[in-house]
Amino acid sequence: MTPAPSVSYSITIRLEFAARSAAVSDITSRIEQHGGSVTALDVSASGNERMRADITVMTAGHDHAMEVVDSLRGIEGVELGKVSDRTFLAHLGGKLSIESKVPIRHRDDLSMVYTPGVARVVKAIAEHPEDARRLTIKRNTVAVVTDGSAILGLGDLGPLAAMPVMEGKAALFKRFGDIDAFPICLDAHSVEDIVAHVKAIAPVFAGINLEDISAPRCFEIEDRLRKELDIPVFHDDQHGTAIVVVAALRNALRVVEKEIGSVRIVLSGAGAAGTAILRLLRAAGARDVVVTDLHGIVHEEREQLEGRLPWIAEVTNPRGLKGTLADAIAGADVFIGVSAGNILTAEDVSTMAPRSIVFAMANPTPEIDPAEAAKHAEVVATGRSDFANQINNVLAFPGVFRGLLDAQATDVNDRMLLAAASALADVVAPDELNPTYIVPSVFHKGVTKAVATAVKRVAREDAGTVDAVTGAIPAVYADEIRL
Amino acid sequence: MTPAPSVSYSITIRLEFAARSAAVSDITSRIEQHGGSVTALDVSASGNERMRADITVMTAGHDHAMEVVDSLRGIEGVELGKVSDRTFLAHLGGKLSIESKVPIRHRDDLSMVYTPGVARVVKAIAEHPEDARRLTIKRNTVAVVTDGSAILGLGDLGPLAAMPVMEGKAALFKRFGDIDAFPICLDAHSVEDIVAHVKAIAPVFAGINLEDISAPRCFEIEDRLRKELDIPVFHDDQHGTAIVVVAALRNALRVVEKEIGSVRIVLSGAGAAGTAILRLLRAAGARDVVVTDLHGIVHEEREQLEGRLPWIAEVTNPRGLKGTLADAIAGADVFIGVSAGNILTAEDVSTMAPRSIVFAMANPTPEIDPAEAAKHAEVVATGRSDFANQINNVLAFPGVFRGLLDAQATDVNDRMLLAAASALADVVAPDELNPTYIVPSVFHKGVTKAVATAVKRVAREDAGTVDAVTGAIPAVYADEIRL
Repeated sequence: MTPAPSVSYSITIRLEFAARSAAVSDITSRIEQHGGSVTALDVSASGNERMRADITVMTAGHDHAMEVVDSLRGIEGVELGKVSDRTFLAHLGGKLSIESKVPIRHRDDLSMVYTPGVARVVKAIAEHPEDARRLTIKRNTVAVVTDGSAILGLGDLGPLAAMPVMEGKAALFKRFGDIDAFPICLDAHSVEDIVAHVKAIAPVFAGINLEDISAPRCFEIEDRLRKELDIPVFHDDQHGTAIVVVAALRNALRVVEKEIGSVRIVLSGAGAAGTAILRLLRAAGARDVVVTDLHGIVHEEREQLEGRLPWIAEVTNPRGLKGTLADAIAGADVFIGVSAGNILTAEDVSTMAPRSIVFAMANPTPEIDPAEAAKHAEVVATGRSDFANQINNVLAFPGVFRGLLDAQATDVNDRMLLAAASALADVVAPDELNPTYIVPSVFHKGVTKAVATAVKRVAREDAGTVDAVTGAIPAVYADEIRL
Repeated sequence: MTPAPSVSYSITIRLEFAARSAAVSDITSRIEQHGGSVTALDVSASGNERMRADITVMTAGHDHAMEVVDSLRGIEGVELGKVSDRTFLAHLGGKLSIESKVPIRHRDDLSMVYTPGVARVVKAIAEHPEDARRLTIKRNTVAVVTDGSAILGLGDLGPLAAMPVMEGKAALFKRFGDIDAFPICLDAHSVEDIVAHVKAIAPVFAGINLEDISAPRCFEIEDRLRKELDIPVFHDDQHGTAIVVVAALRNALRVVEKEIGSVRIVLSGAGAAGTAILRLLRAAGARDVVVTDLHGIVHEEREQLEGRLPWIAEVTNPRGLKGTLADAIAGADVFIGVSAGNILTAEDVSTMAPRSIVFAMANPTPEIDPAEAAKHAEVVATGRSDFANQINNVLAFPGVFRGLLDAQATDVNDRMLLAAASALADVVAPDELNPTYIVPSVFHKGVTKAVATAVKRVAREDAGTVDAVTGAIPAVYADEIRL
């Protein structure tokens, strides 16, 4: 899988060249000879003899971009100017802004928005803390919390380097969930400190989204925060992934006409995502799951079972398998990979049961090239955007949080996650379902609403007050003056 | 000073009444008889017999609003509906939103704003942490931090009740400084914890604005954070107030034709604001300041000098005065009060030197009714918006932070504060200056820019790199690909 030119590595090259008709075609054909893909050409200055243009080119990466730029040096009369990177241009000044929703045009506005009027709102919240959800941003605001210890697949790069990801996540929260999310990038390391800091900032927020925190610390941080806070805590790398995997599996099983309770599932990877997927698979009715990691199949007699592995060994592997991933995969109906690139071969897939399903989601290189897997499996999915069936968390977290906030939920549980997965699966209509369309596009308009409605329903059932909890802002706040 | 009807206590009353021409005038005249001021009448439904209207009325406070509403009960054929409070309506759902500055229209956008493109931006910041100021929101983002321990004049009401104030402050940051500010309302109490939490969240921010934290903890928190963080830390209740007081004093002295180095100043109040004002007065050249508190004049022989009082005793009171506020004020040129209401009499003011200046800034009740003070003093100022010469922090903090952020300052010092005060004073042109106009309106367009320019200039001088530090976003980020 050689990467194709992509907009995510798109450059803009400023050039000056002789004003003759062949000059532009010389330049663009040279770029194309070297594998670049010209997407725009803007003339920024023109004279009788010379002209200047900005040419935007998709490339396959840094080295390829260098090659494309270098190829232009050889053309007579062409002079190279600045080369800029469109992804960096999109990040200049950051990706978020904080806006005032109230106009401040004159002293009257000021006296309501700030002193002296604000004092009455302060007193009202001091007397009725639950009114903070009506009278402040708390109602719709989520913290995107990281310590930068596991940023994408790049490792522990710290809180500052994590910011572009957390800002991007916040931008997605707004775009897909109409949620106000703010990045909290913590300069902190221990579980104890991270828990303490998140608890301290919690008053402003109606939900906490943990992000890119390394395992196994992420488990303890999440567990503790769920116990100690009165707002829902969701670790997207775990639960977002699990929701989309279970949704995709539900539809893949429909395609191959099998039942989740009777299929054999191999789950490769026992980290944060793997553990959460296992939990949700079990909640969804899976009964025969075999988990593998670096050391092969997880079973109760294996040595040095640490962290969550003893629990995994206890609840999985009902047929008592031992050995390698290849041993596990023989005869299996489903492979789910959240582990490492190129650990599965086409031959392995050929030993699976008929009508098999392969989800190879390791990033950036999947467990198996999806084209290879498709030789033997009936349904194949990856985490990549350049192949069918992308397992993408953006399908889950905006709707999950929209539902949690609308229900004013104080917690999040597996029933909500499962409801989210079912709702997401059902966005794909029966007449749309096929082996290359088991999950909707992230831009499908119905996704957030479907997921949110399902989560909200369960959250309200759990609260036991379906009608008492209202998600809508009341038209008029009449509490202050009681007639 | 009986409060007048004000928009900050404005209510909207829904009424149904008989559709006859006298009905409306019956209602509005009844409201006016009871001291309410009708500002709007909207008919929301009309029929042949009955109509429904929303009437908006300014009142003087809660009891007055109740009285106005009750007065309408007696009118025949009038039926009262909901009564709502406009200040609360302005707060519904909170006062801030977080917006994405980048469009997310399709997969190409997604691949630049989020994965996979964002990974390169992450790596760039990991390699060059200083680039976080170019490629993330850090450049323009300020934390408004409180623990809710001293909200306005209301005391320790906690972090949730503080939110309306912090959101309002953030809205003012945007409106007057074009700064993205986010409320951090900490559920924490000890100095140690607050310092630890603020340090942990600091990576996202280019500045910290401390707000409504009780003394004396606010001093230690500020001192420690200034030492331990590489971004400026500013306690608005101290330094914002000090800047505006010194600016106002500078202009008041111009009016009465006196010099700061030769006047006698009495400063009533040795709390957060008083201490900061004293520090800046000294930096501005004041030589004869006498500080008073609950126990009278602060002097070195007074018993039980704690906290900052020993320092105050050391640097003030050059004539060795002892006794009460009244003893201090006799013969003084300037009174500055940040203490408590009604502690100064007109008679006290009459003992001051000719052409005296009185700043009575206690909230909500000034040290002396400004009308009383004006019988003997030539220039009078308060913190109130319903009297001339309002000493309002909004004149300072937006410009101070705009300057600090533009200079990418790592610290804030008294030279910057003093420059801010001078610049603010000079916004009032010589031909505009008079005893009732010593500070500009907060809506005066030149204020933020004047203050910001002054602070930025000093910050750059301090950094010793006037040209090396650039506040402007470079037009093109060309670092990634080096030709």
